[in-house]
Amino acid sequence: MRLQNYSSGQWIAGTGSGTTLYHAVTGEPIGEAGSEGLDFAAMTDYARTVGGPKLRRMTFHERARMIKGLAQYLMSRKEEFYALSAATGATRNDSWIDIEGGIGVLFVYASKGRREFPDETFYVDGPVEVLSRAGGFVGRHLCVPMEGVAVHINAFNFPVWGMLEKLAPTLLAGVPAIVKPATVSSQLAAAVFRAMVDSGILPEGSIQLVAGGAGDLLDHLREQDAVAFTGSAWTGRKLKQTESIINHSVRFNMEADSLNFSMLGPDAAPGTPEFDLFVKEVAREMTVKAGQKCTAIRRTLVPAGMEEAVIEALSKRLAGLTLGDPGVDGVRWGPLAGRDQVKAVRKSVDQLLAQAQLVHGDLDAYEITGGDRDKGAFFPALLLYSDRPFEHTAPHEVEAFGPVNTVMPYGALEEAIELAKLGRGSLVGSLFTADRDVARQVVLGTAAYHGRILIADRTTARESTGHGSPLPHLVHGGPGRAGGGEEMGGKRGVLHYMQRTAIQGSPTMLTAVTGQWTAGAERTTDRVHPFRKYFDEIQVGDALVTHRRTVTEADVVNFAGISGDFFYAHTDAIAARDSFFERRVAHGYFVISAAAGLFVDPAPGPVLANYGLENLRFVKPVYPGDTIQVTLTCKQKTAKEPVEGQPPQGVVEWDVEVVNQEQEQVALYSILTLVRRAEVETA
Amino acid sequence: MRLQNYSSGQWIAGTGSGTTLYHAVTGEPIGEAGSEGLDFAAMTDYARTVGGPKLRRMTFHERARMIKGLAQYLMSRKEEFYALSAATGATRNDSWIDIEGGIGVLFVYASKGRREFPDETFYVDGPVEVLSRAGGFVGRHLCVPMEGVAVHINAFNFPVWGMLEKLAPTLLAGVPAIVKPATVSSQLAAAVFRAMVDSGILPEGSIQLVAGGAGDLLDHLREQDAVAFTGSAWTGRKLKQTESIINHSVRFNMEADSLNFSMLGPDAAPGTPEFDLFVKEVAREMTVKAGQKCTAIRRTLVPAGMEEAVIEALSKRLAGLTLGDPGVDGVRWGPLAGRDQVKAVRKSVDQLLAQAQLVHGDLDAYEITGGDRDKGAFFPALLLYSDRPFEHTAPHEVEAFGPVNTVMPYGALEEAIELAKLGRGSLVGSLFTADRDVARQVVLGTAAYHGRILIADRTTARESTGHGSPLPHLVHGGPGRAGGGEEMGGKRGVLHYMQRTAIQGSPTMLTAVTGQWTAGAERTTDRVHPFRKYFDEIQVGDALVTHRRTVTEADVVNFAGISGDFFYAHTDAIAARDSFFERRVAHGYFVISAAAGLFVDPAPGPVLANYGLENLRFVKPVYPGDTIQVTLTCKQKTAKEPVEGQPPQGVVEWDVEVVNQEQEQVALYSILTLVRRAEVETA
Repeated sequence: MRLQNYSSGQWIAGTGSGTTLYHAVTGEPIGEAGSEGLDFAAMTDYARTVGGPKLRRMTFHERARMIKGLAQYLMSRKEEFYALSAATGATRNDSWIDIEGGIGVLFVYASKGRREFPDETFYVDGPVEVLSRAGGFVGRHLCVPMEGVAVHINAFNFPVWGMLEKLAPTLLAGVPAIVKPATVSSQLAAAVFRAMVDSGILPEGSIQLVAGGAGDLLDHLREQDAVAFTGSAWTGRKLKQTESIINHSVRFNMEADSLNFSMLGPDAAPGTPEFDLFVKEVAREMTVKAGQKCTAIRRTLVPAGMEEAVIEALSKRLAGLTLGDPGVDGVRWGPLAGRDQVKAVRKSVDQLLAQAQLVHGDLDAYEITGGDRDKGAFFPALLLYSDRPFEHTAPHEVEAFGPVNTVMPYGALEEAIELAKLGRGSLVGSLFTADRDVARQVVLGTAAYHGRILIADRTTARESTGHGSPLPHLVHGGPGRAGGGEEMGGKRGVLHYMQRTAIQGSPTMLTAVTGQWTAGAERTTDRVHPFRKYFDEIQVGDALVTHRRTVTEADVVNFAGISGDFFYAHTDAIAARDSFFERRVAHGYFVISAAAGLFVDPAPGPVLANYGLENLRFVKPVYPGDTIQVTLTCKQKTAKEPVEGQPPQGVVEWDVEVVNQEQEQVALYSILTLVRRAEVETA
Repeated sequence: MRLQNYSSGQWIAGTGSGTTLYHAVTGEPIGEAGSEGLDFAAMTDYARTVGGPKLRRMTFHERARMIKGLAQYLMSRKEEFYALSAATGATRNDSWIDIEGGIGVLFVYASKGRREFPDETFYVDGPVEVLSRAGGFVGRHLCVPMEGVAVHINAFNFPVWGMLEKLAPTLLAGVPAIVKPATVSSQLAAAVFRAMVDSGILPEGSIQLVAGGAGDLLDHLREQDAVAFTGSAWTGRKLKQTESIINHSVRFNMEADSLNFSMLGPDAAPGTPEFDLFVKEVAREMTVKAGQKCTAIRRTLVPAGMEEAVIEALSKRLAGLTLGDPGVDGVRWGPLAGRDQVKAVRKSVDQLLAQAQLVHGDLDAYEITGGDRDKGAFFPALLLYSDRPFEHTAPHEVEAFGPVNTVMPYGALEEAIELAKLGRGSLVGSLFTADRDVARQVVLGTAAYHGRILIADRTTARESTGHGSPLPHLVHGGPGRAGGGEEMGGKRGVLHYMQRTAIQGSPTMLTAVTGQWTAGAERTTDRVHPFRKYFDEIQVGDALVTHRRTVTEADVVNFAGISGDFFYAHTDAIAARDSFFERRVAHGYFVISAAAGLFVDPAPGPVLANYGLENLRFVKPVYPGDTIQVTLTCKQKTAKEPVEGQPPQGVVEWDVEVVNQEQEQVALYSILTLVRRAEVETA
């Protein structure tokens, strides 16, 4: 089998001899991968000129639906991927994390794309900033897709998840990508990639594949391009300094392996549920994917006095987890990705053993079930112990990228926090405690050095996704040693592929550019009540200035009666006089209810319901005798996806301004309405 | 005069001979600056161990008040700074931009710190993310101050503004800084710096000054440190590759000069207000600070056919602006910062003249008023014209950092957009148009290449801050050539100096860590109504479960009568039956009014007012016959600053959940109340 590259819309094999790919369990050669002869300049051009424009013409909602379709398609072919995944040494569970976890990221971004982004080609970021006293000059931030190509350089351990967690936010942003998987497990990434192309769902030029070395790909990057790198810190640092990346200020996001900690809280003594959860999680993190996870626990911090209990419990648990051929029943964890990985881990273990003692496992004597010890890339689980973790710093510096972990004791909680920080920046830390003060102290004490912190206790045991799982909702990345990058995190990961631009001008111009009505902008009124208009007829800026209503003492009394709200400021003349209101005031809830009475058009029409209200502020009290009036203005429109059995509809957000007889604002808010789309329905 | 460095809390002169500083107008030497002999390692350590901990113990509100105090103090001494500024070649107006503009950034951040950040040492970023189906496992992002030092490397053109626009967000974030001004104008930066130290307002170790070369300062940076650089792209690229910065993933924010455009819209023909505003702004940008602004207009794009009119109008306007000694009456613009700057600009002009023709100004023959032409760093205003701007690319590539500008014609609007992008990434672009479609097309077409875009028209003429002024509310920075960085932008600039960390755990643990009640977390109830408690007594999580109320048809009828809201779904049984409600429903406004009736405690007490409501969603209709009940939970508390004449108070945000008899949620929202702080007041 020779892997093919997908370059400028064509499947092409590399021209050279390529790199041989091996089966991780049997050690047999299973194929070659090579990218020699690819025209990388043409590939970047193709992405920029073909894929980019097509993706940018789509709205976020269209891109989100595309990503959902892609996820559904890949899910329908998942068994093919499981079969290939086994050859990388992955167990069914490892493969589930990789394959279904990766497809899950697509689903989450598809959902977030529809719920958290507008049905537009750009994103409006943050509130309007008023820049002049009179309010006639305002600013706002827009995010637009970068007009270049994203290059994704992925690690070998999760060939599917690693590819999809980068592609999901990139495609949602409207940016085409060139994917370069790690060669050692590229057969699996290439198969999933080919399925994406087969699906026919992505526009031409959206994705390309380099199955082999990256050659001079990075040399062709320019100011609108971006790189997302996952892998070793050493490689990342080198690539980051590529001349074209430096010279064109190309965004470079780096996610490197790190020395993640897990901490047992002082309260979590043997016998507590937290102790048992901790032991289970540390053992799991050592063996899932044979410890080849950038988020795996490398440093285990336990209260002084509990070391022995922890080591004993961990040893017992590890001894019960079977290493071997993932294809054999009962095997819980498999080999490393290849023989090179075995050599690298062995080297790191030797460095660690110079400063820590081995307390569980044996480098040479270990059992395997199925598979060939000499040909397969097997490595035993090793538990180390360092009794002076402030002096012996190797466990904070040397990463063995396999089933290896060092236990260290701490005295006071401050010491545990200092030990955690000695990793000099990690992707994740976890804490097992039922004590809220411990949680607060450890989280706030270690957060500056970590991209993610998990607090585990008895209440989350059944629902927690665990220490090692980055989630698309949360940022993945960490400072310092972990590379200083940030991926995913919902919306944040999408904005990484967009340019944020501040726009300044009049409220009317900002309304025209953003499609969102901005306070102070021109309004349009006509004789048709806006609630008589269908979704597609309503224009941003369409407004209604209502009739007026004089608020009377009878209103206040009646409203107190019907609501049951007899707060003294409304109903007790004596107490109201002494309050800062100085006399009885109308209920705020009456003001917004009466406002609805002023702006609602009662007969059935396109407006189906008022389902929400945002940012209400009662700016000034309304007193009996005051006369109120409402201006309702269409602020924003978002079409909804058609739902079986419901009339086609959209969300219209209306700005509501209630003023008194002096034209002073008394209440400001937005309401959310559902409005029908069908234009002739009731004719 | 020998400038002193401020190192580890001491004023120290450099040990070497230093660099001579010259008066920009007279050319006379006015002092020396040098940093030889400084212990940069000790300085970074001092910031990390002395300044950092002190700043991190303060809340955002405390830091904001500190920044406000600093701004007020500097304002009281501004005339000293104006006097020094004149020696850099600045006019009174140039100095105003620099000095009062810089102090203005402090005021804006002081205000934003109190309004947009919590009274806490950390910031909670974004909403709660529910991570499990049952909702017992949730995530949220925290931002905490980085635990290192920020190194600020500033440009020579705005010594005060450049220093303060970086210090304001850094100090608000809780991070200490080492400031390294450009040497040529360092006497002014050093004077303002000394005033900040004199003020005694900043905690020890918060700020240090390097008045001279940066030596090996950057070599001492580690994973918790950050660099913010403003200056030439060449220097920035070099510094960015410092080994320690690469190896420790040190954040490096770069803001470089760029080839900013200004565009005249096709509608803005001679005779329109936009044409006149355009001419005025281009001339202003060429001469303010003698064109030595990273945001100055370098490329002027005009509709084909209007070139002559633009050149004529611009030449006329430029001819009327007097160059000379800024100290002399009537002088509108002064010399460059020094003789080296004159040489550099001259060299760039020669490159431009190879591809463009000079249409206004003369390199040798120009008038100056006051000052000595041979000793002062004077340079004339030069207007160039390129008739084939797609072929002759020098004006898109060569930056003359002085009063130099190239006019270029465009045909279709798409052409203008392509020309704008040829700058390969700029800080700012501006567009003069009254046409909304032109505005939308140009903004969306050029945004990916720009950090800021100004739309100018007749309506903003009096309020606009102009093309060249970065504002603290908006991001400053741009992609590609402009360095790829982002500063200020309100909150965003503060987060640049913080680490974002995802926290996962149970809702109760997340509440304990963040101090914000999270849905699903434990609640505390006691027999005292929470509205009977003073601000300081209320705890996050304190809750009230109210009595119930059965909603009747009479309620719906009465509520329609008092509100005037006769929407058919409430009052027309026939139409309601045909709607998706299927029968008459209670008004949503009735539900929240009745909810207030259930949770309000009527007698005067610590709760002064309900002044706002957030994120209301009517989740399920309430029908006559349904029985509702409310759970009110303290979600968040924020003390307010004392105001003369008002009782001490704070804002308490309450989560409100209204359910029906099936315990199904019918309405969800938050209310904002003002609660008194005094605990014994009413005793």
